[in-house]
Amino acid sequence: MEQSAPPRRITIVDVAEHANVSTTTVSKVLRNAYGVSPAMQAKVRKSMSDLGYRPHAAARGLRGRTYTIGLMLPDIRNPFFPEIIDGANEVLDATDYQILLGPARNVREIEHRVTEAMIDRSMDGLILIVPAATPTELEQTARAVPVVVVARHLRSTLLDTVVTDDVAGAALVVDHLADLGHRRIAHIAHAESQRHLVTTMPNTIRAEGYRQAMRARGLGDEIDVVATTYSKEGGYLGARQLLARSRRPTAIFAGADIAAMGALEAIADAGLSVPGDISVVGYDNTDFAALGGIGLTSVEQGGRQMGSDAARLLLERIDDRAKPSRLISLSPTLVVRRSSAPPPR
Amino acid sequence: MEQSAPPRRITIVDVAEHANVSTTTVSKVLRNAYGVSPAMQAKVRKSMSDLGYRPHAAARGLRGRTYTIGLMLPDIRNPFFPEIIDGANEVLDATDYQILLGPARNVREIEHRVTEAMIDRSMDGLILIVPAATPTELEQTARAVPVVVVARHLRSTLLDTVVTDDVAGAALVVDHLADLGHRRIAHIAHAESQRHLVTTMPNTIRAEGYRQAMRARGLGDEIDVVATTYSKEGGYLGARQLLARSRRPTAIFAGADIAAMGALEAIADAGLSVPGDISVVGYDNTDFAALGGIGLTSVEQGGRQMGSDAARLLLERIDDRAKPSRLISLSPTLVVRRSSAPPPR
Repeated sequence: MEQSAPPRRITIVDVAEHANVSTTTVSKVLRNAYGVSPAMQAKVRKSMSDLGYRPHAAARGLRGRTYTIGLMLPDIRNPFFPEIIDGANEVLDATDYQILLGPARNVREIEHRVTEAMIDRSMDGLILIVPAATPTELEQTARAVPVVVVARHLRSTLLDTVVTDDVAGAALVVDHLADLGHRRIAHIAHAESQRHLVTTMPNTIRAEGYRQAMRARGLGDEIDVVATTYSKEGGYLGARQLLARSRRPTAIFAGADIAAMGALEAIADAGLSVPGDISVVGYDNTDFAALGGIGLTSVEQGGRQMGSDAARLLLERIDDRAKPSRLISLSPTLVVRRSSAPPPR
Repeated sequence: MEQSAPPRRITIVDVAEHANVSTTTVSKVLRNAYGVSPAMQAKVRKSMSDLGYRPHAAARGLRGRTYTIGLMLPDIRNPFFPEIIDGANEVLDATDYQILLGPARNVREIEHRVTEAMIDRSMDGLILIVPAATPTELEQTARAVPVVVVARHLRSTLLDTVVTDDVAGAALVVDHLADLGHRRIAHIAHAESQRHLVTTMPNTIRAEGYRQAMRARGLGDEIDVVATTYSKEGGYLGARQLLARSRRPTAIFAGADIAAMGALEAIADAGLSVPGDISVVGYDNTDFAALGGIGLTSVEQGGRQMGSDAARLLLERIDDRAKPSRLISLSPTLVVRRSSAPPPR
């Protein structure tokens, strides 16, 4: 590969010289203004490309937009989040907007720093997936930049929200397992310690939905929740605890597919079979659930739809900051596969 | 949640008023300058926090740094990439740098737009994982901003590179399977059509390493490559083709764990068992490979090490753009699990 001179930023003047046109013409091409022939457009674009000219993103748009959207997600290993991102891209691909991702690694301080970095980088809007920030912090962010919160159950006049009905999702699982004849149905939850999260996080609401549904089926005495984390390790540790009970559950409802992955591993390690000895149901209906050799029954919460709704709400709010805020709530469905069956007799 | 006035940016003046100090003091706190007592520091920091004051990132750092690093990755579904990101964070967590991710969704045009967006957002440096851009394009990027390329075999005086020895990795797999007694060892590759990629991409080098190793074991006549993509779908389609051969392979070497996932699904759908009917080996040694019920033999290429090496090289290049460029090449190892066994008799 070639040697080169030290880097210097290519300017509009270089482009004009290279294309042998005026800087005004280059500027018009950049702004997509009238009065430039298609041939001239092509010539200038070619010079820009040849020189590696990079218009400041701000100069490309109107009103100082950067055409970037920051998407904060707690964890890039959870296969549910790519569904949301795909959905958002379905909407954004028809626009000039680019998504940049900020993984928070399930640490609140990192979430905060990532969100700050996105605002500092002048992103036009933020999609925050299951943020752990307080409502006040979220509103502070929403004062700085348009915000859509995904998968956290809170309302605010300052931001939009997209959720699924997690109480209904948990009930789908309990009803399915109870219909199969299970009574000892245990739940692996993701623990929250902070009060502002307990009432608004999908995981705590899912656990509450599980409790409600168990009681509704007359199984209140069988309620058994282990609270770890929505991760492979969390699922593994949770299942280990459940398998060590003197009366072992006949079914485990993991609050997320990624936790179900860990639970399946713990069950295999214990020499037990799914669904022969124990049924397992996940949540999120990720690619993993459909995998041959696994076939995990799981709750489809409509990740793609959540993502495209979030992107649409965000674009509307970027256009009009004063828009009345909206909350979209989607209904989950259950996808039954072979990991759930009647309990052993 | 509370109603609020239309958004207005909080300034240093607001902070000074709120803390009842001079703007000079606030400025000193921002710069971590001498001459401010710890108590005063705390007081000013509290006002900043109460008001939601957000110093421009540039103002926080020296020489206009933004303390953000852009990391381009082809695909957020491939479980290998989080390993690289974890490794990079191991190094960056000790610094003020934040990573923002740009997924290219395996589309070259999107890779280009994402990279441009990162430069436009003034990121201090870029880590590009398996970029598909031409060497010239990569050098153009490296003129605009410090760049480290990961997992693509190319050298340039303008950028640093971190790779693993993919020829050696492929040979580990072929030798392992041949030692078990396999002869009909097929390979699922990720196809490249563009010439600049064929000689530098890890996937094509892995496929070439497979061919070399097969010949070295006297199995040149058994070479059988299906070229799809490194994705679940690609692995599924590739395995389907291989299973339809009149002489079915007894072992499949998938060039990536994510493709092995799809291959396992195709094998299960065909009513065959692993490793009883057919052995499967992956590459990347991701979390998935270790999963109970799967136990995939796979090549460990040291993703974490690649990520931390990349971050270290990038920080050094940010500090000194003129540094001689370096290429770090890591040696892969094989992790044997239960998906590989002697062929059926």
